[in-house]
Amino acid sequence: MVIGGDAVGMSAASQALRRAGRDALEVVVFERGHHVSYSACGIPYWVAGDVDGPDPLIARSAAAHRDNGIDLRLRTEVDGIDLDARTVQVRELDSDASSTEGFDELVVATGAVPVRPPLPGADAPGIYGVQTLDDGADLLDGLAERPRRAVVVGGGYIGVEMAEAMVRRGLEVTLVDQAPEPMTTLDPDMGALVREAMEGMDIRMRTGTPVSGFETGRDGRVTAVATEEGELPADIVVLGIGVRPNTELARVAGLPLGESGGVLTDLRMRVPGHDGVWAGGDCVEVFHRVSGARVHIPLGTHANKHGRVIGVNLGGGYATFPGVLGTAVSKVCDLEIGRTGLLEAEAGAAGFETVSATVDSTTRAGYFPGATAITVKVLAERRTGRLLGAQLVGREGTGKRVDVCAAALWNGMTVEEMINLDLGYAPPFAPVWDPVLVAARKASEAV
Amino acid sequence: MVIGGDAVGMSAASQALRRAGRDALEVVVFERGHHVSYSACGIPYWVAGDVDGPDPLIARSAAAHRDNGIDLRLRTEVDGIDLDARTVQVRELDSDASSTEGFDELVVATGAVPVRPPLPGADAPGIYGVQTLDDGADLLDGLAERPRRAVVVGGGYIGVEMAEAMVRRGLEVTLVDQAPEPMTTLDPDMGALVREAMEGMDIRMRTGTPVSGFETGRDGRVTAVATEEGELPADIVVLGIGVRPNTELARVAGLPLGESGGVLTDLRMRVPGHDGVWAGGDCVEVFHRVSGARVHIPLGTHANKHGRVIGVNLGGGYATFPGVLGTAVSKVCDLEIGRTGLLEAEAGAAGFETVSATVDSTTRAGYFPGATAITVKVLAERRTGRLLGAQLVGREGTGKRVDVCAAALWNGMTVEEMINLDLGYAPPFAPVWDPVLVAARKASEAV
Repeated sequence: MVIGGDAVGMSAASQALRRAGRDALEVVVFERGHHVSYSACGIPYWVAGDVDGPDPLIARSAAAHRDNGIDLRLRTEVDGIDLDARTVQVRELDSDASSTEGFDELVVATGAVPVRPPLPGADAPGIYGVQTLDDGADLLDGLAERPRRAVVVGGGYIGVEMAEAMVRRGLEVTLVDQAPEPMTTLDPDMGALVREAMEGMDIRMRTGTPVSGFETGRDGRVTAVATEEGELPADIVVLGIGVRPNTELARVAGLPLGESGGVLTDLRMRVPGHDGVWAGGDCVEVFHRVSGARVHIPLGTHANKHGRVIGVNLGGGYATFPGVLGTAVSKVCDLEIGRTGLLEAEAGAAGFETVSATVDSTTRAGYFPGATAITVKVLAERRTGRLLGAQLVGREGTGKRVDVCAAALWNGMTVEEMINLDLGYAPPFAPVWDPVLVAARKASEAV
Repeated sequence: MVIGGDAVGMSAASQALRRAGRDALEVVVFERGHHVSYSACGIPYWVAGDVDGPDPLIARSAAAHRDNGIDLRLRTEVDGIDLDARTVQVRELDSDASSTEGFDELVVATGAVPVRPPLPGADAPGIYGVQTLDDGADLLDGLAERPRRAVVVGGGYIGVEMAEAMVRRGLEVTLVDQAPEPMTTLDPDMGALVREAMEGMDIRMRTGTPVSGFETGRDGRVTAVATEEGELPADIVVLGIGVRPNTELARVAGLPLGESGGVLTDLRMRVPGHDGVWAGGDCVEVFHRVSGARVHIPLGTHANKHGRVIGVNLGGGYATFPGVLGTAVSKVCDLEIGRTGLLEAEAGAAGFETVSATVDSTTRAGYFPGATAITVKVLAERRTGRLLGAQLVGREGTGKRVDVCAAALWNGMTVEEMINLDLGYAPPFAPVWDPVLVAARKASEAV
């Protein structure tokens, strides 16, 4: 039995059925919403008009899942879990009919819920979140009323992607965030490069500016975002403040939560102390391979891997999820941003002493048409020279260069070892010394 | 003292001087040609008209090197090395003046020489190589005479890049190669994808067709390439057959050569048995980290790393070159090709039993604009599942994905371990399961 029909839930259900066979396993999935297996990460591009959503964002339809043998119940909420009786209390949202259903194995895949600031006016019409497909449709309805000024609250990856979407829709865009620079998943010096690039895209950046509330007009609709430094007029407001694990159901049932608020799991994604209970995706904590801490990093790429691990194990196989590096890649107009591992502050908090190196280079051979600027920052442990993290900000060809850093980090390479990595070279793809290797080389001289 | 003023020689000279200081070290470089530190890899793009060469292809001018304290002697050939007397015999090509010069440390960086087929007519006017900047200038002079039909001999990366250059120049292009598919650095099934794509670019592909000679007209100029399957009319012929290590000088001096014909070195790029003699770049053999064999892989990226290693060591530091993976990336029009590690045949020859998996995916999320096809093939060792190689053929966003495979290969990862690699994901950059991970996943099921 699976609670939640998005990436983890549907991957686990499909993989388990594929391995064990329909005759051996009966799989029920309860999903509160109208859709399963959708790409929330695609919503900003649907809103921007790049993707003719929402259908393309649905990786596999409910009908296809049912054809594969999954008993999928949409618009059905689980209100309670009784771990001793091994039952769940379910309610059909449309009919309000309730029932109790038994399980042998339970997968908790309840995802995350958006953080809504506890501020006056935060529920006013004209203020939109961007988590579900319904949120995307609501926001597009709001845009159909031809607003002129948009304020995006939050400078993380959802915030910057939504700022781009609003620019592409022709709005005047202001981004407001309490942090001194956008993208707090980067060190401030790298975040500053993002801010400067976004200012160059005519996005007004109000960083270091806490939001204190939302002003509304006579009709109750939002008219401005109030900050400690004055009002930011807004016809439409998009909240990109982030999410927290959706664990109320798990907590009440008595499942263990970690310090970041996510459900605890072991390497096979089993909930410790509760045989036959599994959890994965945005509702769990994961192990950070560099810091050793347990962290909440809600990303579709992890959720899909968790789903596979749970499904393989449920289907009688063996698989583990060995943790994350905090790799992420995002894009604002033609600016690409990648990061993996620890920031300087995170490394310090974990107990590392560090050295760092930042280099400016080009994505292709300097003389090659389309060569664009890339800045790479590499963080390494003092004395050992072990790579601890990498951050990249630049134009086309920058973002996915984070992957080679991630693979080096995964394997515990030192920056000295990285210098000789045999990476692909040809003038349309890289300078003869790839920017990543130049950064490693410079960092190795500082170790 | 350095013989050869390209990547290895100038990097070694610069690095050694930077480390040791001008007062501690006197550095003389002999270079037979007119230029130093140039990008031979850029010549096809200069010929294509992408790069306004040759100046942009020169990474650092002779004057800049001299300003840095290097005693650089252009148009000066070394005719002999006396290892016992620790002298070299040099000749100024313009004046024909000869002299003997002593050395304490010697760097052999004589590069490679193009393979010219021992076929009738191979020296006829209208037949061009593409190794030096002078070759590039000659070919451009040939193109200025407005030839209509070009035949490119050789389907390796230089051949395919030159075929693109000729297409871009508006010529009717035929590529001829004796191998059944182009790009023999790929398995034949992946090479077939390259052939099909090139045929789609209106390049006539005559693979599996050995060249038997060159026909010439009354003026002695080439008129056709003769093959066992008939003549291929040509106004211009470009040879992209490859290169061999230029080791005649080293061999006569008594330096050890390996079975691939390159100079032997140890990990610090010292020639074994000859104190104070170093070698690097296209004239040496290198250690292949996967097969354990010594191989000749002439690439600028290795040459630059060799130069750094030699320079660090000469300057009193410590550095080693830990071998190669055979990583390469190339481009024909909008087709990108990457490979690292061993092919199936190479793995078999090295003694591995293998499993492989090939997957078709997209470079971005399937629904994202600009998502293009990518085919990834992964080769792993039977039973252990250790990654042995990867090949990628596809459109924009394909080529540099080889780097994450290279980093995984460098670290001896298994395909099972690769499945959970924390790579960057966002819809403009990758599907939620990166194609590389899908291939690893499929291969792991075959182990």
